[in-house]
Amino acid sequence: MLVKNSLLNYKDKIIYQNNDWFMFSIDSVLLANFVTINLSDKVIMDLATGNAPIAMLLTYKTKAKIYGVELQKEVYNLAVKSVKENNFDEQIELLNMDVKDIVNIFESDSIDVITCNPPFFKTISDKHLNDCDIKAIARHEIHLNLDSLFSVVRKILKNKGTFAMVHIPDRLVEIIDKMREYGLEPKRIQFVYPKEQKESNILLIEGVKNGKPGIKILPPLIVHNEDNSYTDIVKKMFGE
Amino acid sequence: MLVKNSLLNYKDKIIYQNNDWFMFSIDSVLLANFVTINLSDKVIMDLATGNAPIAMLLTYKTKAKIYGVELQKEVYNLAVKSVKENNFDEQIELLNMDVKDIVNIFESDSIDVITCNPPFFKTISDKHLNDCDIKAIARHEIHLNLDSLFSVVRKILKNKGTFAMVHIPDRLVEIIDKMREYGLEPKRIQFVYPKEQKESNILLIEGVKNGKPGIKILPPLIVHNEDNSYTDIVKKMFGE
Repeated sequence: MLVKNSLLNYKDKIIYQNNDWFMFSIDSVLLANFVTINLSDKVIMDLATGNAPIAMLLTYKTKAKIYGVELQKEVYNLAVKSVKENNFDEQIELLNMDVKDIVNIFESDSIDVITCNPPFFKTISDKHLNDCDIKAIARHEIHLNLDSLFSVVRKILKNKGTFAMVHIPDRLVEIIDKMREYGLEPKRIQFVYPKEQKESNILLIEGVKNGKPGIKILPPLIVHNEDNSYTDIVKKMFGE
Repeated sequence: MLVKNSLLNYKDKIIYQNNDWFMFSIDSVLLANFVTINLSDKVIMDLATGNAPIAMLLTYKTKAKIYGVELQKEVYNLAVKSVKENNFDEQIELLNMDVKDIVNIFESDSIDVITCNPPFFKTISDKHLNDCDIKAIARHEIHLNLDSLFSVVRKILKNKGTFAMVHIPDRLVEIIDKMREYGLEPKRIQFVYPKEQKESNILLIEGVKNGKPGIKILPPLIVHNEDNSYTDIVKKMFGE
């Protein structure tokens, strides 16, 4: 079902979603908050943008041009609708295409900052899930895996440009290995924990193309208090 | 100056230290708490054991035989003195030798669990610090770097055996890369933060020899409250 929600605390801004597929989640808000954007950055790209929550939230921290790339036509259409209604269409340009084809459109070393909230789960071999299932494509590496993502990022990101991603900690080791393989040196990590005494369930990681080794582990980000209410830091992120 | 301190809250147990060199620190306590030891484990080894805080603390969580390996004669002597006075000499055997020579004494695939609180800092090239400085050797990779450590661990650790180490988060990426290179798959990580809003300054990491990929990020371990007092979890660890 198509629903129209407000974009966090930006009361006059909305986001169209279809709750049969997926709703934009805390992952996107965390990533938009986490990514480092400099005043001098001119071009930003959000890959696998979905209904464009990250692209839209980033308009509040930069005046740079923001491209959002989404493969799935139905989801892309929602993004277009939201961007238009919010009058973000001067700053945000949406592209309905496969992330892997971006390298044919954009020049090498042309983007300052790339963000991505990619599919988190490996595709189970021999069981291609439902290849036309919108939700499955957003969650599983059916059309976009880490290798194809990093290969694109490596190509179009400027030298010393920033790449920031949200993912699951379970795949941390593989993510670090592969980022380095593609010349994206991990520089900042923040682990997100559902509660103070729980294992981390969300990983925020930022790398710099051809950056020097050496990483910072940011303060722990705890989402819920013991009584299940949101912690102050998360409330603030959601604009409460 | 030689000092005789109590071993945490074990009032009848002591540790000899020389405060001109270094004192056993929270790192060792954290690692002794962190490492996974199973009831079935028979042989444990603490590499670069120093004045043996980890080896001695582990007697409280296992009945396994514990070897402690220390290169520096003066530091080894302190460890021997403490172990003897605590009557740990049935369970702990100390070896005054270079970690790299352990492979000549112990059979391959013979140790269940290996712990290590190694030198944290790279040696500055061309400036070999003071090669005979006891403190420098404990802190800088003069006699033991990650490659030589992991190479020894890989050889003497049993298949599916456990390796646990304390280190600095700044070198996380390199540590993960190298552990995998030596077949030690990272399985558990805990980040230690000096305060809730500070970056992590201590890394606890555990790997399994020939383990399957997939890692858990344990709950954040915060050392100090805002008023600089120890947090309850750390107080408990120190037996207060």
